[in-house]
Amino acid sequence: MSNQAAIYPLSSGLGTLDDGCIFCLIIQGKIPSFKIAETELSVAFLDINPVSEGHTLVIPKHHAVTLHDLPDPYLADILPLAKKIAGSLAVKEFNIVQNNGKIAFQHVDHVHFHVVPKPSETEGLIIKIDENWPQKVVSKEELGVVAEKLRGRL
Amino acid sequence: MSNQAAIYPLSSGLGTLDDGCIFCLIIQGKIPSFKIAETELSVAFLDINPVSEGHTLVIPKHHAVTLHDLPDPYLADILPLAKKIAGSLAVKEFNIVQNNGKIAFQHVDHVHFHVVPKPSETEGLIIKIDENWPQKVVSKEELGVVAEKLRGRL
Repeated sequence: MSNQAAIYPLSSGLGTLDDGCIFCLIIQGKIPSFKIAETELSVAFLDINPVSEGHTLVIPKHHAVTLHDLPDPYLADILPLAKKIAGSLAVKEFNIVQNNGKIAFQHVDHVHFHVVPKPSETEGLIIKIDENWPQKVVSKEELGVVAEKLRGRL
Repeated sequence: MSNQAAIYPLSSGLGTLDDGCIFCLIIQGKIPSFKIAETELSVAFLDINPVSEGHTLVIPKHHAVTLHDLPDPYLADILPLAKKIAGSLAVKEFNIVQNNGKIAFQHVDHVHFHVVPKPSETEGLIIKIDENWPQKVVSKEELGVVAEKLRGRL
């Protein structure tokens, strides 16, 4: 059934969903979820394997594997809903993480934004600069070359 | 100078900027940056300490410390621009990360979304499930209680 897309009559009439995708089934209520909030274009529900209490996923009501594939109206709808979810958390600090591609730790092939509460230094997402976030010292000349490349591919 | 906000005549006329904020100074061109693209409400420029080549920051042209403080029109503008940046990268896989609060690894007090290319398993952002992403097994009953709490605070 995977990759067999079908257009379902969502409230907006816009979404294309895939019956082989667990998140598309959640959107349609064919698989139960702990829904927190939704809009016409997005839905937010609890991650069933939370990194911290309140860990929520915000997803578009349209089947797209990565950010590249998601039409702008869906993209524009996600962060205002994530902000609403953030306002409902027990803690003020949190991380937003969205992964694109297998080696980039994407485990479900439907765009999803993690809203991960950070209740303390030892809970929630842990990022150690050296191990997880290997920042480099780069010269201005090198940065200029990279910027030129990116601008050329826009 | 920090916390001394001033309204500057941005193209949109909407942004409130803070002269004590390095990103607000970048927005105004008072500090140079390697700008990749911009819209009326957002700007994207290279992180000067990149985790991988092409590591870009997308920020709103409005001074807000965390997602909670950012008006929805700015939030809605960010991901379509991040998608454009993603399309200009040399690699297809990447992570989006946005941190809110000191213990959640926020180092500049102006909302910023990292677009971090993931060229290989050993480059870019590294997330190890056990060490960095401590998922828990939680019962449906416990999830139900958490969902109820979040919905009650919306």
